[in-house]
Amino acid sequence: MTLQITALEGIGEIQPGDDLGAIIVDAMEDPAAAGASGEAAECAGLPGGLQDGDILAVTSKIVSKAEDRFVSADDREQAITDETVRVVASRETPGGTVRIVENRLGIIAAAAGVDNSSVPVGTVLLLPVDPDASARRIVDAVRQRLGIRVGVVVTDTLGRPWRVGQTDAAIGIAGMQEVLDFRGTVDEFGQEMNVTVTAVADAIAAATDLVKGKAAGRPVAVVRGLAELVDREESSTPRSARALLRARDEDMFHTGAAESWAAGYAAALREHGIEP
Amino acid sequence: MTLQITALEGIGEIQPGDDLGAIIVDAMEDPAAAGASGEAAECAGLPGGLQDGDILAVTSKIVSKAEDRFVSADDREQAITDETVRVVASRETPGGTVRIVENRLGIIAAAAGVDNSSVPVGTVLLLPVDPDASARRIVDAVRQRLGIRVGVVVTDTLGRPWRVGQTDAAIGIAGMQEVLDFRGTVDEFGQEMNVTVTAVADAIAAATDLVKGKAAGRPVAVVRGLAELVDREESSTPRSARALLRARDEDMFHTGAAESWAAGYAAALREHGIEP
Repeated sequence: MTLQITALEGIGEIQPGDDLGAIIVDAMEDPAAAGASGEAAECAGLPGGLQDGDILAVTSKIVSKAEDRFVSADDREQAITDETVRVVASRETPGGTVRIVENRLGIIAAAAGVDNSSVPVGTVLLLPVDPDASARRIVDAVRQRLGIRVGVVVTDTLGRPWRVGQTDAAIGIAGMQEVLDFRGTVDEFGQEMNVTVTAVADAIAAATDLVKGKAAGRPVAVVRGLAELVDREESSTPRSARALLRARDEDMFHTGAAESWAAGYAAALREHGIEP
Repeated sequence: MTLQITALEGIGEIQPGDDLGAIIVDAMEDPAAAGASGEAAECAGLPGGLQDGDILAVTSKIVSKAEDRFVSADDREQAITDETVRVVASRETPGGTVRIVENRLGIIAAAAGVDNSSVPVGTVLLLPVDPDASARRIVDAVRQRLGIRVGVVVTDTLGRPWRVGQTDAAIGIAGMQEVLDFRGTVDEFGQEMNVTVTAVADAIAAATDLVKGKAAGRPVAVVRGLAELVDREESSTPRSARALLRARDEDMFHTGAAESWAAGYAAALREHGIEP
């Protein structure tokens, strides 16, 4: 089984109001934009253009730009506060306060996903209002223009507990499965596999970041070879990146260790009538 | 820019004592084993076999099997306890107790990484003793047999806080960069990018899981197109998956919320001379 992941070239700086579906389809139809380059494998670019069963990974940054989610950079800390539904954890570092928060979209991330890179000086960028809907619009645009069915993930760069660095994850999903559920299937020894649910949309996001890079002008990538994940018809329940969010009562890390410790300490004082 | 990710076919059930480097090189040299299949893209398989700059992703399961890390299934809970350095969090579910622990390798994961799928009935599998060394042996075997330099990640399936399901991550690394550090670089607007460190080894692990699948007999995949991540000469500091582990004092989620709350509560009682 082979996957091919190709970053599209020729997607220029996105402006508010831009039609991303149209821009992506146009970029696919231009051979120069299809990512052909000297050192690529024999299969440079995407022969034949976009196909049924392809999956597009679109960086949330360009979705936000098209949707004019810019705010003044002076308001960055205020923007983070405004986007914050709940503070999960925070700590002071030499570089400033790191705030891990749950944002409007239910995503737990540093700085509520407010983005201050690859934007004009003096601005920051908020996350899209509804990344699932943004993904849906691109699925529909491709269907209308080319008559084919693709999946779309809107991706964002997220850090994670316990491990260094970031990987990209799916914050918006349309036209494809969010996860692959192996529970109830059996392994080659006939034993039931009882835990594995693969977050395929997140794996796809992480994979496509490897070709998109950062600050390199390649915010869209095409994944070919996972057609089995793409919806052949409208799915009965709408696809959503919220399917990848863990419910609080199943999340043993819903709040940081220091914050939880402090809350337990305060509760003990309260319950025993002790002034803090 | 294009990546090609191909799962190798023809890697049979691995037995204790097997030479994984030799098995992988042999599988690459057999055209039938190179993963060619009817529905693949024009570039089925890996034309020309393994090449300089390729990256191999090897499922930890086969590394453990080759290294005879089997123990009796009766001892599964005991095996988890033995592999546990520190309990990070636990909770009761209908399916049993979920234990998130820090294991010998410093990895925080459910069940300490003890594996009870795709193993003979009556056994479970521990993680490799030293996955970095296991990766190194494969790098060296390929160099010896084929005269080329590849990178190797040993991969394992890990859950994560805040998000549903699992993705694969790198638990052993050799011959390649663990991360891509963008700090100090500038974006297209000339502003310094100050946070991004991409955990490329984890992204590669997640990506290759998309072609390997579970219980499908494809425990090795080849990533072509990321040669810039592969070491052209011995790196000055040995590569290690430990580079992807967050230090405890930089990890706001080193202990679960409930456990931390209970510790804070107990500390308050203790400090105020109250019997619990």
